[in-house]
Amino acid sequence: MSTRFARTKDGFSYTKATGELKRGLVSEGAICPSTSFASSPQSTYDVIVIGAGYSGLVAARDAASAGLSTLLIEARDRIGGRSWTSKDEHGNLYEMGGTWIHNQQGFVWRELARYGMDRNLKLSPNEDYSSHAYSMARRNGIEYKQDYATNEAVMDRAMRIFTNLPGASVQEAVPFPPHLLDSFLSDPKLTALYDTTSCAERVAQVEKEGLLTNEELAYLVAYIELCFGARLEKCSMLVWAKWYTHGNCSYKLLNDLLIVYKIATGQSSLARKIFDEAASTGKLSYSFESPVSKIIDRPSATRVVTSRGTFSARRLICTLPINVAGKVEFDPPVSALRQEAWKEGHVNRCLKVHSEIAGPEFRSWTGNLCDDDVPSGRQLSMAIGDQLLKSGNAAVVAFGIDFDEEKAPSKNPRGIASLFGEFDPELEKRYIGSTWHEWGSDEFANGAWAMPGVGFSTKYLKELQSRHGNVLWAGADISDDWNSFIDGAISSGTRAAYTVVEEWRRTTLPSAKL
Amino acid sequence: MSTRFARTKDGFSYTKATGELKRGLVSEGAICPSTSFASSPQSTYDVIVIGAGYSGLVAARDAASAGLSTLLIEARDRIGGRSWTSKDEHGNLYEMGGTWIHNQQGFVWRELARYGMDRNLKLSPNEDYSSHAYSMARRNGIEYKQDYATNEAVMDRAMRIFTNLPGASVQEAVPFPPHLLDSFLSDPKLTALYDTTSCAERVAQVEKEGLLTNEELAYLVAYIELCFGARLEKCSMLVWAKWYTHGNCSYKLLNDLLIVYKIATGQSSLARKIFDEAASTGKLSYSFESPVSKIIDRPSATRVVTSRGTFSARRLICTLPINVAGKVEFDPPVSALRQEAWKEGHVNRCLKVHSEIAGPEFRSWTGNLCDDDVPSGRQLSMAIGDQLLKSGNAAVVAFGIDFDEEKAPSKNPRGIASLFGEFDPELEKRYIGSTWHEWGSDEFANGAWAMPGVGFSTKYLKELQSRHGNVLWAGADISDDWNSFIDGAISSGTRAAYTVVEEWRRTTLPSAKL
Ligand SMILES: Cc1cc2nc3c(=O)[nH]c(=O)nc-3n(C[C@H](O)[C@H](O)[C@H](O)COP(=O)(O)OP(=O)(O)OC[C@H]3O[C@@H](n4cnc5c(N)ncnc54)[C@H](O)[C@@H]3O)c2cc1C
Ligand SMILES: Cc1cc2nc3c(=O)[nH]c(=O)nc-3n(C[C@H](O)[C@H](O)[C@H](O)COP(=O)(O)OP(=O)(O)OC[C@H]3O[C@@H](n4cnc5c(N)ncnc54)[C@H](O)[C@@H]3O)c2cc1C
Repeated sequence: MSTRFARTKDGFSYTKATGELKRGLVSEGAICPSTSFASSPQSTYDVIVIGAGYSGLVAARDAASAGLSTLLIEARDRIGGRSWTSKDEHGNLYEMGGTWIHNQQGFVWRELARYGMDRNLKLSPNEDYSSHAYSMARRNGIEYKQDYATNEAVMDRAMRIFTNLPGASVQEAVPFPPHLLDSFLSDPKLTALYDTTSCAERVAQVEKEGLLTNEELAYLVAYIELCFGARLEKCSMLVWAKWYTHGNCSYKLLNDLLIVYKIATGQSSLARKIFDEAASTGKLSYSFESPVSKIIDRPSATRVVTSRGTFSARRLICTLPINVAGKVEFDPPVSALRQEAWKEGHVNRCLKVHSEIAGPEFRSWTGNLCDDDVPSGRQLSMAIGDQLLKSGNAAVVAFGIDFDEEKAPSKNPRGIASLFGEFDPELEKRYIGSTWHEWGSDEFANGAWAMPGVGFSTKYLKELQSRHGNVLWAGADISDDWNSFIDGAISSGTRAAYTVVEEWRRTTLPSAKL
Repeated sequence: MSTRFARTKDGFSYTKATGELKRGLVSEGAICPSTSFASSPQSTYDVIVIGAGYSGLVAARDAASAGLSTLLIEARDRIGGRSWTSKDEHGNLYEMGGTWIHNQQGFVWRELARYGMDRNLKLSPNEDYSSHAYSMARRNGIEYKQDYATNEAVMDRAMRIFTNLPGASVQEAVPFPPHLLDSFLSDPKLTALYDTTSCAERVAQVEKEGLLTNEELAYLVAYIELCFGARLEKCSMLVWAKWYTHGNCSYKLLNDLLIVYKIATGQSSLARKIFDEAASTGKLSYSFESPVSKIIDRPSATRVVTSRGTFSARRLICTLPINVAGKVEFDPPVSALRQEAWKEGHVNRCLKVHSEIAGPEFRSWTGNLCDDDVPSGRQLSMAIGDQLLKSGNAAVVAFGIDFDEEKAPSKNPRGIASLFGEFDPELEKRYIGSTWHEWGSDEFANGAWAMPGVGFSTKYLKELQSRHGNVLWAGADISDDWNSFIDGAISSGTRAAYTVVEEWRRTTLPSAKL
């Protein structure tokens, strides 16, 4: 590809040889120039969409395609929100946030298929380098290695035992995952039981009862921490159970859904398709680098105050991540319950770091860490070989938990190598450099994919979804489908846009003859 | 619901007590009046869509929503094609064709979710009536009964053994089902091996090698026949393997995908939402009861000759079922290979009959039949309790194989009771009446959901999907996603409409500033 992409302010890269730390990376998602107005910026739009992540992009596209004058407002200088792809000078693509998709995540799959991109996939797992085709784990001072077939069988059994709480099978608590809180098939008492149990409590239980071995827990704990980007004390069994049942209670399917299939041309290429389609309708205006500070909702119209001025529209679709929505002032204020939810926020403070490791072998490798074994306080929980770079070296991607700004790689890039060294000293020796995004301190995300903590879903989810005057809420964080995923972002954006389009059609168009 | 629906010419009902056979049933899908023109019928449309099944409905809606002048042409007097719901005078709904949907069938799920219909589901399986909460099967003169938990375990094992051909595991042949023929993960030789093996050959093999018992085969054979609507000689192992891997090689998930979740308000209510949305754009014209006889494709425009006159458009999306497409004349003619494919057609000649059975008990029941046990030549292969009617009686729905017009229920409605009696004489005794559609002799379908026979997919599928001048093909029959399903219909209609809309935008709209 010879296309020249622009640079975003987001993301970091570091090269050990030069000691150079760069802020800002090249991405297909960078938007330049940052504003475009299809009509006068003073006019009242049919709809304003806040946020150009997947949820907002899809909502803006659907609204603009249906003929609504649409304004997309975004704080960053790029599309994609928590999903974006950087491209280095050699043409290597790095997914900085949301990455993996699957044909059973129907909302994102539909987008890929519709744009004819569904056949251009890549795989993260790889067993080409047999010397390194294993998954290592360490717990209580003991280190394990399993080949992938063994690991699949171990994890399948361990997850089944772990996930089913005594007296309440996961299929009773979450019989039909897209309807977490009001499935006609589920028992609300069981749902509540799952949501008030933390994954840490459950680990203690299965360990005490001898249901799982130290080896099994070494792999399982790291996997669940990977899913939450947080220590298990903060993780709700209900949220975990929902994912597990989305995966039909099969480790293989769950893993296929979570961490296997990538878009070969990068997430930003899909986001770009959606954005370009919206722009091609001639109905889209947009304003990037325009953080919203205030939303004033009146019956006739909603006004949105940004750093670039105030805009107004008949409807507003707000896709602000729940961990930053509270920074925006609402007039009239949102409900006390919603404020409380925003204050509590979700628990995922994952740090995702790609590192180039000399030689191709680590392409086939997986590593898992538990707490006890990293005296200095652990930052990473899991790492996998993710791709071969143009250099012929492997790129290993690692996931952290409970991001600590004090220890941020951008403050101490030379320390990254030793973080990887916790898995295997060989990684530290072969370390070349890194590319990453610090989601935990990102002012427009303040966290990674949204993982509600213990009790959060049953207490707040309905409220977070409910409309507030002319303001409709969307985003992966509050989705009923694959919550916290690209799929959920697209699903909720799709639904919100449909509601707005329907209301617009009823009031704007002559009633059709039927 | 007090809404009055119109009557379609499709479908039959029969009541034993009165001996009355009725042709034509009331449906939310019936369209009256049958034409509506948004602009002059003489004008050249941006796009004509042939067929108002799910594929055509979605294509027409997407095109009209994007602003294209769109004409929808349909032979029948109703929308929905092979998926439609009849409503009797008591308000009971009967699905005459496509019925079951699932959140892992993303294209149809997206439609349901977008229209806010995803929470209003019903289940076919039911274990409330414990005296009848079992699955019966018969093979080689021996009759079996299994409770559903046992049956699930038996089927899971039997399917795994059956589906994996010696030396070629199903996951090697179909590693990623949406990309059946050109997955970057699969081995084309294995794909071909699966497609040239019939399910009958595989049954003979597992029986000879003693891999499955007579009991296991009693259930398995009926299930696979249900899937194909045909005897196993005609069924391709590749087509079966694709479904099986869509279900993650798990009987439970496959069954959940095939025959569990129904739309509570009926399929026609979803089709109606799509149609009404298309109409609400003001860009949709339509002509029902207008069978197409000829398509004349010229570079500037395509003309479509129907019983109501000739229409022209810049593009054509053709969703004709593959078993009837050959009846339409094409100028220039379609390729020899496509003609051959249409001549061969797919093998599914399922008859689907709902019967009211006195008492609620059969609501919980399932029955399976194999060939040897029905001396007169069997017509049905499987039946399940599907709903409780307003009368308090159960409705049992049965599926046939290799529909024989001579023995059609409409020719001998009094014989239907004894067809059900083959499963259990009690069903014949308690028989009250039936509702059905004879898909095998339907002039606009000539078969049920499309199940390609042995060798068909590898030989014809690519050709059937490939564009022909201004004509794009769509429909469940040729879909890459959930082929033969509502999901596949929607997926291919979505893709075709996108292509047309993109071409239209490129030529019609001023290029957008980006
Ligand atoms: C490290 C990481 C890995 C992930 N991995 C996966 C994965 O493999 N698969 C998967 O499906 N999902 C994954 N996810 C989750 C997925 O990326 C997100 O759930 C999804 O992208 C969220 O989309 P959204 O539109 O709901 O929110 P966002 O993408 O966060 O969009 C919200 C937008 O609002 C903007 N915004 C915030 N504040 C303001 C303001 N005041 N004014 C204006 N704009 C504002 C933000 O800049 C952002 O662009 C991952 C996420 C992360 C962070
Ligand atoms: C008995 C039965 C049970 C099924 N069960 C399920 C199920 O449970 N779940 C599921 O997902 N799927 C099921 N299916 C399959 C599903 O219904 C179909 O795959 C899907 O509805 C097909 O949609 P389509 O738009 O591709 O084709 P169709 O619905 O067949 O639409 C094609 C349209 O073209 C029209 N047409 C034909 N000839 C002409 C002509 N010459 N001129 C003009 N118009 C013409 C037809 O009348 C029809 O309306 C079932 C199908 C049947 C028959």
